[in-house]
Amino acid sequence: MSILVVGSVAYDTVETPSGRAERVLGGSASFFAVAASYFAPVNLVGVVGDDFGEKELAAFRGRPIDLAGLERAAGKTFHWQGRYSQDLNSRDTLRTDLNVFEFFQPKIPAAYRRSELVFLGNIDPLLQREVLAQVEKPRVVACDTMNYWIKGKPAELRETLAKVDVLLINDQEARELSGEWNLVKAARAIRAMGPATLVVKKGEHGVLLFGHESCFAAPALPLETVIDPTGAGDTFAGGFIGYLASTRGFDDAEHLKRAMLYGTVTASFTVEDFSTRRVESLNRAELDGRFEDFLDRLSVARGVPAIA
Amino acid sequence: MSILVVGSVAYDTVETPSGRAERVLGGSASFFAVAASYFAPVNLVGVVGDDFGEKELAAFRGRPIDLAGLERAAGKTFHWQGRYSQDLNSRDTLRTDLNVFEFFQPKIPAAYRRSELVFLGNIDPLLQREVLAQVEKPRVVACDTMNYWIKGKPAELRETLAKVDVLLINDQEARELSGEWNLVKAARAIRAMGPATLVVKKGEHGVLLFGHESCFAAPALPLETVIDPTGAGDTFAGGFIGYLASTRGFDDAEHLKRAMLYGTVTASFTVEDFSTRRVESLNRAELDGRFEDFLDRLSVARGVPAIA
Repeated sequence: MSILVVGSVAYDTVETPSGRAERVLGGSASFFAVAASYFAPVNLVGVVGDDFGEKELAAFRGRPIDLAGLERAAGKTFHWQGRYSQDLNSRDTLRTDLNVFEFFQPKIPAAYRRSELVFLGNIDPLLQREVLAQVEKPRVVACDTMNYWIKGKPAELRETLAKVDVLLINDQEARELSGEWNLVKAARAIRAMGPATLVVKKGEHGVLLFGHESCFAAPALPLETVIDPTGAGDTFAGGFIGYLASTRGFDDAEHLKRAMLYGTVTASFTVEDFSTRRVESLNRAELDGRFEDFLDRLSVARGVPAIA
Repeated sequence: MSILVVGSVAYDTVETPSGRAERVLGGSASFFAVAASYFAPVNLVGVVGDDFGEKELAAFRGRPIDLAGLERAAGKTFHWQGRYSQDLNSRDTLRTDLNVFEFFQPKIPAAYRRSELVFLGNIDPLLQREVLAQVEKPRVVACDTMNYWIKGKPAELRETLAKVDVLLINDQEARELSGEWNLVKAARAIRAMGPATLVVKKGEHGVLLFGHESCFAAPALPLETVIDPTGAGDTFAGGFIGYLASTRGFDDAEHLKRAMLYGTVTASFTVEDFSTRRVESLNRAELDGRFEDFLDRLSVARGVPAIA
């Protein structure tokens, strides 16, 4: 099952305690697409300016990412600049230049109109619906959003969420969207808005999944090397949705649990370097190796095991 | 294997968004002992004042908790009063009356001197060592501490830690003790101080275990009802150490992982009511039932499962 993803493709300038990266590839759709491409073909819809070069496109080349929907507009590419705190747990946005992204009107190429699986990256909920209007009859609609839209366009967002099957947001966003501090209560309120499956990302604290049957929880991998957390959430989404696209297991508890771990493992590579550098250098065997190692650490035997 | 626990037995007055509990049973040794008693016999060493009545002792009665080491001193029992924030994620101490606890000198009854397993609750590290000096040759020494001692008596604490096999502390304490923000690095530094096994408690975000072989991570149970978090960490320690005492699996990775889940599950009951109310009303079948349910939520199948 291929994935149609719509979202931002950007330049990021990032400062972390480990260093600084200047005008490197960023944007939610970039991280998502690279991550998902290890599992399923990706069709990328976004916009870049005429300053966006072959160097940045290289991250997408040589993998199953179709760029027919990556529009090139006159002007400059979206640029975000941020600085992380010493502990990497917070960041300040120093600069946001929307540039060509300000007037982004997603145009879905005819070849993508029959997409079965759509991932609506974190853009205006009105644009998210315009994307859906251009797709014939997707089987699964997955979606991300952020506080900016939760506060700024609550009615538009509600209308979009009514059409969404899988929502991936972080814990603060879940609290703001629902008005509930407790995440179990928040999840019930959000699932009542439309998404049958809610994934709550908690960064270094792991992820919760709320679905039809139950609630699942997974820790993050304890990592010694964290260079740059930018894009970790989008990478998680790419690994999670990509894995499910490859197995078509969106309604299966076991597949959802494996997808949580694949998302977690894929994101664990992203934070080991700036931009998409580390995650684009992977191969599936490396991903599967870390997945199996993670599974070993998590697995608890049934029944009381004998003392070794 | 029975457990010798030394720590505080107290009155707590607690305000949370759910209500207020006045002069109810508190103290680290109380929560630890009740939790551990579902798994193994507990010998409790502590001090209370002459105001401590049969009503509070009732929590310890009818279960394998020996009170021969619970000294009754002239004066009042240790009293702590605190108020939690609306989101339960922080608390203010309104009042600490150490009372008889201020002059606590743990005296280990002769019958306990051959204890194989000692849990040193969060008391002055000098007193923790005086406890060890009164025990002949324990096979396993487990220990808790807090920021107050990490900052206030670092040299004494180091000397104690050199004699400890299993240290259970929270994430902030691990960072302060090691001077490292990254928990993987913090764990390496702390294990070099003595404890072969380090358990880092992260509250609602679960727990990490660092041992000989590897690092294990477990999420907490997502809970809808949280009335009072007081004692959750001590209950975790009681469930964790109690389980290992019952299987003697302190050096076995599979047993350590199960102990993490038993600690988590036992603590999940504590927060559902004030004081030890909920955790003292349990039975082992109820504990095992929630353990199995938790295991179901966590378990991820090996190999790609068929779509249901």
